[in-house]
Amino acid sequence: MTFLDEYKAKKRELHYLSDAVGLMYWDLQTIAPEGGKEKLSDSISYFSTEHFKKSTSDEYYNLVCKLAEKEEFEKLDDVYQHDIRITKRDLEKSRRIPADFYEEYVKTTTESGIIWPKAKENNDYKMYEEPLAKTIDAVKKIKSYTDPDKKVYDALIDDFEEGMTQETIDRVFGELKDALVPLLEKILKAPQPDHSKFTMKVPAHEQAELCKFLVEYMGMDMTRFAQAESAHPFTTSMGSIDDVRITNHYYETESISAIFSAIHEGGHAIFEQNVDKKYDGTCGANINYMGLHESQSRFYENILGRNINFWKPIWPKVCEIVPEYKNVTLEEFVREINHVQNSFIRTEADELTYCLHVILRYEMERAIFIDGAKVSELPAMWNKKMDELLHIIPKTDSEGILQDMHWSDGSFGYFPSYLLGSIYDGMFIEAIEKDLGSIDDILAAGEIKKITKWLNENIHQYGSTRTSGEVLEKVCGKELSAKPLIEYFTKKYTEVYNL
Amino acid sequence: MTFLDEYKAKKRELHYLSDAVGLMYWDLQTIAPEGGKEKLSDSISYFSTEHFKKSTSDEYYNLVCKLAEKEEFEKLDDVYQHDIRITKRDLEKSRRIPADFYEEYVKTTTESGIIWPKAKENNDYKMYEEPLAKTIDAVKKIKSYTDPDKKVYDALIDDFEEGMTQETIDRVFGELKDALVPLLEKILKAPQPDHSKFTMKVPAHEQAELCKFLVEYMGMDMTRFAQAESAHPFTTSMGSIDDVRITNHYYETESISAIFSAIHEGGHAIFEQNVDKKYDGTCGANINYMGLHESQSRFYENILGRNINFWKPIWPKVCEIVPEYKNVTLEEFVREINHVQNSFIRTEADELTYCLHVILRYEMERAIFIDGAKVSELPAMWNKKMDELLHIIPKTDSEGILQDMHWSDGSFGYFPSYLLGSIYDGMFIEAIEKDLGSIDDILAAGEIKKITKWLNENIHQYGSTRTSGEVLEKVCGKELSAKPLIEYFTKKYTEVYNL
Repeated sequence: MTFLDEYKAKKRELHYLSDAVGLMYWDLQTIAPEGGKEKLSDSISYFSTEHFKKSTSDEYYNLVCKLAEKEEFEKLDDVYQHDIRITKRDLEKSRRIPADFYEEYVKTTTESGIIWPKAKENNDYKMYEEPLAKTIDAVKKIKSYTDPDKKVYDALIDDFEEGMTQETIDRVFGELKDALVPLLEKILKAPQPDHSKFTMKVPAHEQAELCKFLVEYMGMDMTRFAQAESAHPFTTSMGSIDDVRITNHYYETESISAIFSAIHEGGHAIFEQNVDKKYDGTCGANINYMGLHESQSRFYENILGRNINFWKPIWPKVCEIVPEYKNVTLEEFVREINHVQNSFIRTEADELTYCLHVILRYEMERAIFIDGAKVSELPAMWNKKMDELLHIIPKTDSEGILQDMHWSDGSFGYFPSYLLGSIYDGMFIEAIEKDLGSIDDILAAGEIKKITKWLNENIHQYGSTRTSGEVLEKVCGKELSAKPLIEYFTKKYTEVYNL
Repeated sequence: MTFLDEYKAKKRELHYLSDAVGLMYWDLQTIAPEGGKEKLSDSISYFSTEHFKKSTSDEYYNLVCKLAEKEEFEKLDDVYQHDIRITKRDLEKSRRIPADFYEEYVKTTTESGIIWPKAKENNDYKMYEEPLAKTIDAVKKIKSYTDPDKKVYDALIDDFEEGMTQETIDRVFGELKDALVPLLEKILKAPQPDHSKFTMKVPAHEQAELCKFLVEYMGMDMTRFAQAESAHPFTTSMGSIDDVRITNHYYETESISAIFSAIHEGGHAIFEQNVDKKYDGTCGANINYMGLHESQSRFYENILGRNINFWKPIWPKVCEIVPEYKNVTLEEFVREINHVQNSFIRTEADELTYCLHVILRYEMERAIFIDGAKVSELPAMWNKKMDELLHIIPKTDSEGILQDMHWSDGSFGYFPSYLLGSIYDGMFIEAIEKDLGSIDDILAAGEIKKITKWLNENIHQYGSTRTSGEVLEKVCGKELSAKPLIEYFTKKYTEVYNL
């Protein structure tokens, strides 16, 4: 048995364990009855712990180091060279964390994760202050172990979008803010569409059927796909590109929400399905550049899905699946899905104001990790920024600073990924139109799969062997810029709102 | 740490592994896409092997033996005394099988399991003869290891219904056969109902909603229950009484099939949900008396579900959920669900002829294991028995001897359980009516949950700590007899068919 064979066998075992956890999580979120949840959570703990033990063992690490030595490394193909490089880097990071501190870190973030929903429910920021402060300290400390040479916030951003820095984000988010705040002001002065036509009841089974139809239309391989219902939509792959699943929620009077969740998660899933099979079971298949991942989901959701030409070829079919839509015209439907409103909750925001919600969170994280803002000052800071960006002030912390889960479990640095994804999308529009011609025309001709094929070939197949920066360089040949996204928004909303 | 603590920890680990396998199997059968099935099967193999290794280790066995020693055993409560007794007995059986023979056994039955569906599809018994012969030999050999002091067929029956013998089955099946064949002859001469009204299309989502309503009506705790769709209906528990699940199939024009699958699997699930929680994680919770298990599913399906009084209180609600049923009367519906026909396929048979299908298979197994019948003689024997019992002769082996999966994977001795379940049911009717009064009246009053409560208290709570024989003795105070079932059938069909 070669070192590589031995490594592959160990890695396969790790995958059996992590795939089991993935399946249990899927089951917990989709179908497990209330009574079974505790037991499933216990099982998840057991298999996660087994995975942690095996993946951090000296035996495994020594094998990885052996394969990273020049003589062995040169024998590997590109797939395993990438895999060993990433595995070694990540192991070195995690092995620098002292075991007793890691335990403390898990305890701190778990406690904070338990208190957050209670604080949100009771609109009680006070009870969340201490756990949040402790979590921030724990996050700072863990980064001092894993990335001793980096600034804390850069290290956090890097976790979710490798190679990205605070400096770059400052630049592009700044450009966006300067352009979008005045654009929003103009829009809010213009006449708004009538929402009342869209409160019709659509039964869950019709919504589910429509969602299935839409993702298939986008180019999903349905033999490697499943969809189910859960409280919050998400995408997950069962450890291979051949089994990728999404969830959705079907509220009777909010069918449009389900449609756009399906298109969004469908975009993530098409990315996952189309990674080159040669990366199966290696780090190349594990797409952990969240900005890049969000760029794909948001490209389908916003750039394609909110374009009238997406719907033109399929509108009769949509009305056949959901007869309730026969009472509205295609034009009314498209107007509704492009309705801009300044509202408090990020997850319910439209395409345009969503950007401002993310910028707000980024500026808050910057204040926390760079300017050393105190947790007691954060709610006032949040409200001030809401006023500045969206011209509204939350009446409660529940619809303000307490709304998101991310900080409660220590996921600082994640928020920027959402908006980075949209900024990449602006740049991808240019690249696609250069190669394939007008997106409007392709969509109107019912040929969306041509765009999917382009994304497959230029982005998806590489999995995580190219960082977002490398993808932009290869695909667009340009540095990151918010200008294309700004142009897209300006053109779009000038038309939609007759500005 | 005491020996018991150590044992509990090891047993818990075994449960994590077997529960993972259970969940993967559930997922494979219900939602996994085609593309993910191979990977899921690999995972199932991995975790099954891990479970096998740990459960057959000397370390585990020695611990069990230690706890079985008088001094330690006496310290255990009744739950763990039962658990240790059963665990030790089963381990001793399986440890007597030589490892290399076990591998051969698995290979033989796997091969036979692969060829069977092909033989069935191609109506080619010839290609199945050799694998079947090898499987029979392998089964005989494995029983000579596990149960050297028993006759092979008794040992096989004992696997599925502990304590039952061929002698007892001969007696009760004989009684039944003598009574049911002439009853069927009379029925077949009587006028038959019009089936054409029951080919209406009922959408899957309506069927699923009705099934959920029915099991809840029967007394299912819905917070510990889930239902999903699969090719063949089955019940499974996710390793605890707090998460019991059933599957169903929803064919548009066969809604009655889905209804009775739901009531049948619902009966199994109510049994699983109501085992005393103190047996959690021990052998007491693992109900492996298949006759007793079938007695519960078949009690709900046939004795209760095919009784007009079951439907009387809920018929308006049924028609509300499935508006298509408004075109038939309650009387027509009940007539349809009690339609007796002599047909070829066991799984599609009605309540009465089902018994004869099982008797046929039992007599075949008897011929194989006791009389030493040759596999080449079996198809002719099957057809002769069909003629004798049901007065029809299959035109092909596919609708004859090749129809069932059971023999292909070595599950000889399972078939009698189905009919034993119905025989127990006949006896339970007497016991219930003695305690609670007329079943008809209870059902008509919409008080089916009273019957469920009686079953919970008298049967379910004991899990597998009482064999079927012990249950009959405690509940009915009588020896096994087919007479109550015969009386039930005679009374029922004399009325239904005006004999």
